[in-house]
Formats: sequence, structure tokens, C-alpha cells
Amino acid sequence: MKRRDFFRNTAIGTLGTALAGPLSAIGQPAKQRGNGNLDAYGDSTGHARNIIFMVSDGMSNGTLTMASLLRQRKEGRQSHWLQLYESGKAARALMSTASASSLITDSAAGSSAWGGGVRVPNGSLNVGADGTHYTPILQKFRKAGKATGCVTTVPITHATPAGFCINNSHRGDMAEIAQQYLPLRFDVMLGGGREHFLPGTRKDKQDLLQQYKTNGYTVAENRDSLLQLPAFPAAPVIGAFCENGLPYALDREQDATLRQQLPTLAEMTAQAIRRLALHPKGFMLQVEGGKVDWAAHANDAAALLYDQLAFDDAIKVALDFAEADKNTLVIITTDHGNANPGLYYSDKANDRFDTLQHVRHTNDWILNGIQRDTSPAALIARIEYAQGIVITPAQASSLLAHYTRLDGDGLYNPRKLPFKELAAIQSAHTAIGWGGMDHTADYVELAMTGPGSAQLPSFIKNADLHRFMLQTANL
Amino acid sequence: MKRRDFFRNTAIGTLGTALAGPLSAIGQPAKQRGNGNLDAYGDSTGHARNIIFMVSDGMSNGTLTMASLLRQRKEGRQSHWLQLYESGKAARALMSTASASSLITDSAAGSSAWGGGVRVPNGSLNVGADGTHYTPILQKFRKAGKATGCVTTVPITHATPAGFCINNSHRGDMAEIAQQYLPLRFDVMLGGGREHFLPGTRKDKQDLLQQYKTNGYTVAENRDSLLQLPAFPAAPVIGAFCENGLPYALDREQDATLRQQLPTLAEMTAQAIRRLALHPKGFMLQVEGGKVDWAAHANDAAALLYDQLAFDDAIKVALDFAEADKNTLVIITTDHGNANPGLYYSDKANDRFDTLQHVRHTNDWILNGIQRDTSPAALIARIEYAQGIVITPAQASSLLAHYTRLDGDGLYNPRKLPFKELAAIQSAHTAIGWGGMDHTADYVELAMTGPGSAQLPSFIKNADLHRFMLQTANL
Repeated sequence: MKRRDFFRNTAIGTLGTALAGPLSAIGQPAKQRGNGNLDAYGDSTGHARNIIFMVSDGMSNGTLTMASLLRQRKEGRQSHWLQLYESGKAARALMSTASASSLITDSAAGSSAWGGGVRVPNGSLNVGADGTHYTPILQKFRKAGKATGCVTTVPITHATPAGFCINNSHRGDMAEIAQQYLPLRFDVMLGGGREHFLPGTRKDKQDLLQQYKTNGYTVAENRDSLLQLPAFPAAPVIGAFCENGLPYALDREQDATLRQQLPTLAEMTAQAIRRLALHPKGFMLQVEGGKVDWAAHANDAAALLYDQLAFDDAIKVALDFAEADKNTLVIITTDHGNANPGLYYSDKANDRFDTLQHVRHTNDWILNGIQRDTSPAALIARIEYAQGIVITPAQASSLLAHYTRLDGDGLYNPRKLPFKELAAIQSAHTAIGWGGMDHTADYVELAMTGPGSAQLPSFIKNADLHRFMLQTANL
Repeated sequence: MKRRDFFRNTAIGTLGTALAGPLSAIGQPAKQRGNGNLDAYGDSTGHARNIIFMVSDGMSNGTLTMASLLRQRKEGRQSHWLQLYESGKAARALMSTASASSLITDSAAGSSAWGGGVRVPNGSLNVGADGTHYTPILQKFRKAGKATGCVTTVPITHATPAGFCINNSHRGDMAEIAQQYLPLRFDVMLGGGREHFLPGTRKDKQDLLQQYKTNGYTVAENRDSLLQLPAFPAAPVIGAFCENGLPYALDREQDATLRQQLPTLAEMTAQAIRRLALHPKGFMLQVEGGKVDWAAHANDAAALLYDQLAFDDAIKVALDFAEADKNTLVIITTDHGNANPGLYYSDKANDRFDTLQHVRHTNDWILNGIQRDTSPAALIARIEYAQGIVITPAQASSLLAHYTRLDGDGLYNPRKLPFKELAAIQSAHTAIGWGGMDHTADYVELAMTGPGSAQLPSFIKNADLHRFMLQTANL
């Protein structure tokens, strides 16, 4: 595929219709090539004009595996991530993910390692324990005259995009991060986190979105507004489409209003590439499947696997572009494991796993829709509707007991909802088990294709990827 | 290092003294080479005279990670497995491990996929659901005039070695498998499982070890007997050093009698290579760290990590030989994940993980040493002695309650002991969490170095590795 044809023929050319179209050439499992015969797009030993850095946040090995198995059993093909391996076009590494303060990183230190090239303490964005500030990679790329951007399914002010963009010793200061972005003028910033931009929800009552407009930004208010942006990227674009994170892909898919108002990660990725690719000196884009991490924290299997597949759809958009462009390094990885889920053996494991092909809603949707006065029968019906699982009256009562202990105001605070208990009940129905509800130290999967990919070593520290990217981009 | 120097200078040349000696050249992290620049021992695109196939049975990604982190924090260097990556000498693949009957394989079907080239149902050794027998790879190598062998820490009749050796639709028929080996005359068979060879423990009262001797085998009775075998391999050797599996590496290390009587996996590997390498047409050897899987089933962290490190010591023996020989393909992998352990985040995670550097004994040792009349105080002291962890009196009483429910005869039946409960108590002390007590569907890590390794694709099905090995060996 030629580069100009990408915009005409691929997903990006048909935005608003069907992003999950039939496989293009890249999707067909080619004759497998060995490790000694890498066949990446473009010159795998050369320099890359563009870098697309894709992060499925908090993706344990079991998440990658189960999402690919789900796609395979549901659609007859592996995930695009694994198809890339089958095509012989990927270089791979195992990556160590520790931070300066712990064997187990958080997303702030994880993104900072890539973004600033130095391991910093958990919670920090490119600020060392001694207060040293490390310049984030998007600022370096911008200074070099390249276009830059981030898209994510969590707040655009969240740790993973922020680690490529700014310095702040407190990742939680998202209101401040929303201000820090403004003068930096990254070209495309898309995600959630609207509450950090609006006067009604900011403590300082500033209307940041108005300030962004005053400073020449185009503000994308919703999906239509994003898809109908003028092609020429005269102005930087910012879009914060939800108060907090975007809904899980599975829940969005079931709701016509959400589908109309909110873009998918693949759509945001396509639109970002479309604008950034017009830049004459190339670009760097970070794409985050941020709610994969949230789903893992909640042991929410349906949320996890369908958000991983939504991330996988975004991979396809990036790979289609890279195939056409021949000048783009695509990096696909995660910042750390989370909850180490697995599909566990039993003689019914296959059938149980296959129930996930027919789910309608996540545990997040189930539990956030329960009220104090929901009856056990209503909860049983709700879970059966959402996931085809019939729990017992005793299990329903046990779950509902959590709600009687909640304050009225706390009802919609996800941290108080019985995610763990529901996941434990579901394990018997889905065959999926969880080792905890937090990040793990696991070495993680990293793949890349495109110019420079042949230089990837087999084992790499997260922070060393920073220099790798600078060298590949010839900065 | 030249091949002849391997036997003089390396671990194998100093058998009986210190196998865990200082690092040889291979252990020094070299300048890292990229995926496009594989630098395996010998000609990575050529054929291999020898194949050493190394299986850490039931090794989830977290097991590989934590063992390497433990070695790094304890000894200042990564695992040999990871050092191989750092040296740029490894080709890597992600491997799918399903069986014919399930997304989650057992070790019989897993080994059969590699051994016979076809996925068979769980529980079966190279026998398809329709009764078809697939010729095991060691029989193929033997027919081609090569030397063959298996070494393992579990019974030599167990699923993983058996899957390379014989056909049997019931992996549990280990008494029969012990008979099946006899006429096949594999050159070196070392491990546990003595009960399947002796008249006192066989239902048919046959003395198989005597039959092996009568048929010209040399029987290695213990560690000394193994290490003092005459160098020239005139006769095939069989050694079944324990009734069942060998003790965990950690427990062996604490017991002078066990150290004297029983070889380590590295020692068995070294002795096997020493004999097989004398064969003029080359050899194929399977090396299994079989109790990694048993430890994962028991959620026994100390057992798991130190047996993984014992496997890692065997890797070093194999790599030292391959470096010297230049004609040996070394494959290092696992048959499936198990229990998906992880080191989980908390602000004390590093310190908690570091307690594992100072443990004396496994949970297996702790729980098998408890009697009906053990007091809570004695159990608390036992666990503190073994692992430096102080549990509460309530926790001790809860663990001991399991023993009052056991029949007298069942006391030493591991399946009835409270492994799960002890692991749950320990998680707060070690930061290690477990997702279950059984195998998982996770795609797994596979590495290789040596002739042919450049042909390894990035993604491979377990069964396809069979043809890969035949092609690499030019059979």
C-alpha cells in the first residue's frame, strides 16, 4: 500500500463507518520469517521519521494472551499484535519495568522512564528524587521541529500521556497538568479528563478549555467534532471527551448515545495520525489503552479483554499507516503487569472462556448500576443480562451487602464497590483467575516494527528505550 | 572457549566441587546486539549436530521474572536465561501451548506436542484422540544414530520426559512407562521415580532396575555413583534417585545427607552432556526443571524460585557446552504457565521480596513436618526458622486445624495439606500473589541459541517446534 492510499483506502479513510473492516494485506499470516530475518516496514536498520508509541497500560502476559485467544475464537484470527509476529515483521524484547523507588512501577514512573530516560520514584513525572527535571520526549521532538501528540482512553492529564509531556512531582495534580499542557502546544491531545479543564470542577474555577481556544487551539467537543476536523492541522487540537476516563469499549458498544458522542481509541488514533502525518518533519504520537489498567485493578475480565481488543484495533490503524508510510517506527508495549490474570485449567475451561464472546457489559457497568434497594433477584437478572452468568441468591445478597455499608455519596465511588468479590464469583464461570488487584514486577512484552527496529536488543530497561527512540529518530 | 576446554575448565570439569562457580565469559553482559544482529554460538542459519531442550515445567512469566530479580538482588547478576538475552545470543519466540482437548495443556500433551509434532488430548503421551501413535522425537533421533537422553527433577517416568520417549494414552501409568523405556535404550535417563522400578512398590512386583542391569544398563544409585561413572558411555545409564520427585533445591541445600546422596539438576545435566557428547553423530537431551511446576501448583514461593534458579544453573551448564561446541542448539522454554505468580506493589514490596534471599526451607518442608500434635507455638517457630516470617497464633491454629481433619494415613499426602492457606498468609510477608493453583493458557517464553536459531519465528505453536527441531538437526 502506498502512503497516499492509506488515507484513501484504510480505516482512516472510512472514519465514521467501519473501523473494524476486513483484514488488509498486513493481516494475512504470511510465511513466517525467523528471528534472523526481520522484515519490518521500511529499512529496519535506518532512521525513522515518525514514531508511534503504543501502550496497553497494565497489561500482564495473560491479558495479551487471553485477548488474542478471544479474538481468535470469536473472529477466526489472532490479535493484530500477534499477527504482526506471525508476519515476521516485528522485533521483540523483554522489558524490565522497575522505577527508582520500587521493583514495581506505577504508570507515572513507567511513562517517565520512557519519556525522560531516567527512572524516577513512583508518583513522579520526570522529576528525580533529588528534584532534577528530565526533559520529556515530546518536548524534545517538538523542539526538533516535529509534530507531537497523545491519545488515550483515560484523562489526557493522566500519568502515561503526562510522562511524555511534562514535569511534575505529583501525578495526582491533574488540574495543574491540564494547565502545563497549554503553552507547550502539542499538536493533538485526545482523551478524557474534562473535569480538569472546566470551571465547575476545577478548584480554581478557571475555564481552561476557553483558555485553550483563546490561545489558538481547536477544541474537539465530541466524536463528530473530532471526525469532522479540517484536514489541515493549522491549529493544535485538544479533546477531553468525558469527565474522567472514557467508558469501557464493551459498555460503549452497547449504548447508541455513547457510540455517537465518544470516539473509539482506534478513531482517535486514526485522526491523530491523519493530522500529524501532514507535518513535513514527521511526528511522535503516544497511544494509550489506559483503561486496560483500570480493568485489571478491578479484576474486571470483560472490561479488560474488550479494552485490550480496542487497543488492538488501534494497533491495526498504526500498522496500516506504517505499512504505507515506510518511515514510521511503531512500538507496542505496556508499562507494567497488573493482576496477572490467567485462563485456568478445568475440564470446562474452553466453554467457560467462550462465554466472554457473548457478554454485553463490564463489571463496572453491573456494579455502578446497583442501588441500595436493588433486590437479589434484580441483581441476578442484571448480571445474567450483562454476561450470561447466573449467580446464586446467596452470592447476590453477599454482593448487595456492600451497598448497605456505603454512604449515599459513596455509591458511585468505584473503590468501594465489590469488584473483588464479583470477580471471585465469576472465576467459576469464566475460568479466569487473578493474583491480586495491583501492579506487578513482571518483565513485559515489547514489540516494534519499522525503521530502527532491527537495533532492538532482546532485553531492555524501560529507561533505555528513551535513548533508543532518540537515536532512531536521529535526534 | 574450545570444545575440549569445556570439559577441562568449566563446571563439568569440576563436578563434585562447585558447579556454581564464577561467571565464564558468557556471563558477562556484552554489548547488546539488536534483533537484526543475532550472534548465536556457531552458525545460526546452519544445522545443529546436537540439541539440548530445556523445560522449566509450568513457568509463568512472573516465575521467570522473580527468579531473575532474586538472583540479581542476591548475587548482583541476572539469571543465566536473561544474561543470554543481554549477550545478544538468543533468538526468542512467544509460544502457544494449547492441547488438542483444551486451551490449557497438561504436561503430557505439552511434551507430546514438541515430542511427537501433533497436539494430543490432555493426559495422553503421543497418542491422538483417534488412537493414532506419533513417533516421539528421541526415538527418531535414536533411529538416526544419535545419542539421546532425559534428565529431570521429577520421576523420569513423568509426563515431560515421557513425551519425548514413548507412546501411552495414560500418563499416569508410570509403572508401565518404566517398562516401556527398557527396550528403547536411551543413553542417559536420570531423575526420580524409583518407586516405579522396584518390586516393593510396583503392583506387579517386578524388579525393573535388575532388568535394566540384566539388559546392559548401568544403574546410577546415587550422586556419587553418577559422578563417578566411567567416562566412556559403553552402556546406557539410568538413575532414579528418589521414590518420587527429587527434593526441592532449597531443602536439599539445607540437608547434608540429601546433598551427598542426590545430584542437582545442573550436575545431572553436566554428566548427561559429558556422556552424550562423546557420541560421534551427536545427541539430543531433554532437561526438565520439573518441580517448578509442582511448586506452582502448591503456591510455594520459596520452592518455586529456588527450583527455577536450579534450572537456571542447568542452563549455564548447557550454554557453556554450546559455547565450546559451536554445534549445539540450546532451546529454553516451558510447557505452560502455572498459577501466574507476581510480585505485587506495596510500599514495602522490595523489602518483602528480599526476605526470600534468606529462606531456609520451602512450604513443602514446613507443612510436611507438622504432626497432629504440633502446637501453634511450634508451628510459628518452624515457619520463622524456615522463612523468617512470624505468623500470628490465630493463623497457626487455622493451619493446624487442617491436620486434625486428616486421616493418619493422609498426613503426608501433599494434596490435603494447607498449601493454599499458607501461601495466602505469606503473601503479606513476601508481596507475592497467586492467581490459582493450576495451569494457565498463557503464551510462554521460548529462547534458543546455536545453529538454526536464526530460523525461529516470533510466534510458534508448541507442535511446530517438533518440525523445527527435525529440520535443524537435518533429520
